[in-house]
Amino acid sequence: MALIVQKYGGTSMGSVERIKNVAQRVKRWHDNGHQVVVVVSAMSGETNRLIDLARQISKEPNAREYDQMVSTGEQVSISLLAMALNEIGVSAKSMTGGQVAIRTDDSHTKARIQHIDDSQLRAALDAGMVVVVAGFQGVDEKGDINTLGRGGSDTTGVALAAALSADECQIYTDVDGVYTTDPRVTPKAKKLSKITFEEMLEMASLGSKVLQIRSVEFAGKYQVPLRVLSSFDENADGKFDDDFKKNVGTLITTDEGDSMEQPIISGIAFNRDEAKVSILAVPDRPGIASSILSPISAANIEIDMIIQNIAENGLTDFTFTVNRGDFDKTLAILGDNLAEIGGKEIVSNNNVVKVSLVGVGMRSHAGVASKMFETLAENNINIQMISTSEIKISVLIQEEQLEKAVKALHTAFGLDREDGESKVAGL
Amino acid sequence: MALIVQKYGGTSMGSVERIKNVAQRVKRWHDNGHQVVVVVSAMSGETNRLIDLARQISKEPNAREYDQMVSTGEQVSISLLAMALNEIGVSAKSMTGGQVAIRTDDSHTKARIQHIDDSQLRAALDAGMVVVVAGFQGVDEKGDINTLGRGGSDTTGVALAAALSADECQIYTDVDGVYTTDPRVTPKAKKLSKITFEEMLEMASLGSKVLQIRSVEFAGKYQVPLRVLSSFDENADGKFDDDFKKNVGTLITTDEGDSMEQPIISGIAFNRDEAKVSILAVPDRPGIASSILSPISAANIEIDMIIQNIAENGLTDFTFTVNRGDFDKTLAILGDNLAEIGGKEIVSNNNVVKVSLVGVGMRSHAGVASKMFETLAENNINIQMISTSEIKISVLIQEEQLEKAVKALHTAFGLDREDGESKVAGL
Repeated sequence: MALIVQKYGGTSMGSVERIKNVAQRVKRWHDNGHQVVVVVSAMSGETNRLIDLARQISKEPNAREYDQMVSTGEQVSISLLAMALNEIGVSAKSMTGGQVAIRTDDSHTKARIQHIDDSQLRAALDAGMVVVVAGFQGVDEKGDINTLGRGGSDTTGVALAAALSADECQIYTDVDGVYTTDPRVTPKAKKLSKITFEEMLEMASLGSKVLQIRSVEFAGKYQVPLRVLSSFDENADGKFDDDFKKNVGTLITTDEGDSMEQPIISGIAFNRDEAKVSILAVPDRPGIASSILSPISAANIEIDMIIQNIAENGLTDFTFTVNRGDFDKTLAILGDNLAEIGGKEIVSNNNVVKVSLVGVGMRSHAGVASKMFETLAENNINIQMISTSEIKISVLIQEEQLEKAVKALHTAFGLDREDGESKVAGL
Repeated sequence: MALIVQKYGGTSMGSVERIKNVAQRVKRWHDNGHQVVVVVSAMSGETNRLIDLARQISKEPNAREYDQMVSTGEQVSISLLAMALNEIGVSAKSMTGGQVAIRTDDSHTKARIQHIDDSQLRAALDAGMVVVVAGFQGVDEKGDINTLGRGGSDTTGVALAAALSADECQIYTDVDGVYTTDPRVTPKAKKLSKITFEEMLEMASLGSKVLQIRSVEFAGKYQVPLRVLSSFDENADGKFDDDFKKNVGTLITTDEGDSMEQPIISGIAFNRDEAKVSILAVPDRPGIASSILSPISAANIEIDMIIQNIAENGLTDFTFTVNRGDFDKTLAILGDNLAEIGGKEIVSNNNVVKVSLVGVGMRSHAGVASKMFETLAENNINIQMISTSEIKISVLIQEEQLEKAVKALHTAFGLDREDGESKVAGL
């Protein structure tokens, strides 16, 4: 008998029929003797409906009231799921963040979980009940409702799994796991049965939007085994056996596995949302990076890659990337400050993408970078920027070459799905 | 400076525009230096939308989950109103029943308020804030949400006014007060500026559906001055002066006023939802009423008027009325039990209505009943049943004669609006 925390997103809860399907799945796990805590999001569309109402009242709604309002989306869906469970003979009760209680700080719309009281949860589980908990919300010490920000239900799931020392936190979603790369870019992409937290963080932050990044950090910190799996996969039939553990979805874990079998890289991530800005011939003096970037950060613009070349004649070129949505604003700020910075010219390009190889195997294998650069060169792909971390190498290239680059790297690093190898393990 | 509790129903909160209008009205009261607590219902249609979702999940949804779900309707509307107030410069915060806390028993879907903690409310009022409280809901000692049943927001308003010793509880609605009778039946109906709690109870229970009856009982018990007024009446401009107190809406109060001016009757109520059932020639023995009515009550059918004539030859006729919706079920139950009861025959009529004169003035005036019967006789209206209480006389008549009866009685008892007398006082 295991204690499982399951999280279902807005799409899985998107209609009465889908809620009934979720109830059936939860029932199978419960019938097999497992203790189940379910975390759910609002029905898809509901949160947007509420936000739209608020925006009609105020362009910048009062944050406390916004949270008080938007948290009702989850309150409705937990109640409906608990009703559906009771209807099919599974004793169940719903709990809001406040009822659990999930204690947060008071940073409305982007609160962080501080503590979870597990006593009521355990009492209900011990009484044989399924508990359905509202994702995305908690209460601060004043009793005010705070939300965790969009996608926060994943974090709620992981936090509950940590508080309850659950055997696994299962994130049910509309994909069946984490892939070596986006299957829309190469049909040879294959599902990973396992990935480390660190790899997942790099994959997620680079554009594989399966899981909210904060929930992965949380899971890594508290060592919560985290499984991403499809809410449409009939194989997840409530048996927590070896076959399930090995084949269903993708398990995100601290276990790096047997290094003999471990591939050097686990996946290829990419991000189209990049724009590159260079300032040419700036004086190479201490504090120059800060004088360029501080006004940009102050405008809440996130800076991704940063490169500063070595100086010649006391002058250097300084390059960084931002999200494309911030491109114009960045250029405007730089233009205003150019005289003060002392640069000669601004050169920019918002037609670039970042491609990254991710893998803990890099730590023990040399030559990954050179193999990557060779592969790109063979395909006539020009590298505009390079940045590396312990388990990741990223390059910036022209957007038109993205697909060619990913396909070539996917093959070169042995990630291609074999003939006959099922895309979804177990089907 | 007064402390005012205002309650706005679902129609007043029915759209973003209307919510903004409510905010403007609240602001006028606040700007005039009054402390204001606002109680609101869910936006019109929202509660039904939620109930419809629940019914698709289960024909009889789990009651705890039903309350957890349906209470979100008010949670959304309090947040939106608090946003709208903050938007126009009025410092405001919303509070759910749980946040106040309004403590109820655990009778889901029909809970009763047991206690209200006024400390947080007072703290917010003393800080100059408007507090917007969710109607219709509270929490029991387990922290579970309970609702008070439909229309329970009126009760929340009165209970808060009692807990805070408010100067007045104002129920804003889509009518401008309580009328002598339904203006759709006679255009000569006029608005009452004052009515006693007892009269209001008789009027409400007999079909003048302005206020939830429980809130009137509550207001009477705790001596809360209760005013019904229109949410579209621009005269309610935030000045709590003599003109307002005397002319706007209808004040429900314990004060019976100067008896010299007090009319004998205050209003004429009627109820179309009546059906009459008689059992002829039943043995006149002890326990006969109980043997007839017990099986009907056991089926949750509410019995209204009851008449048993004097016996002849040891046999009597027994007649009572039920709601029309329960008519067929009542006949079926009686049919099953007829042999046991020992009656000869069942005679029924579901084409009847009840017309009632209501007024505390009856206590000190004889002859009201005979004047009523005379008036009806002059108009060839046959009386099928009569029942009386201290401040009410009700008769059952054929439905077709309802309008004629109400008009004739309205004139006979001096209730008709004078020429030139404004329908709405103060306009």
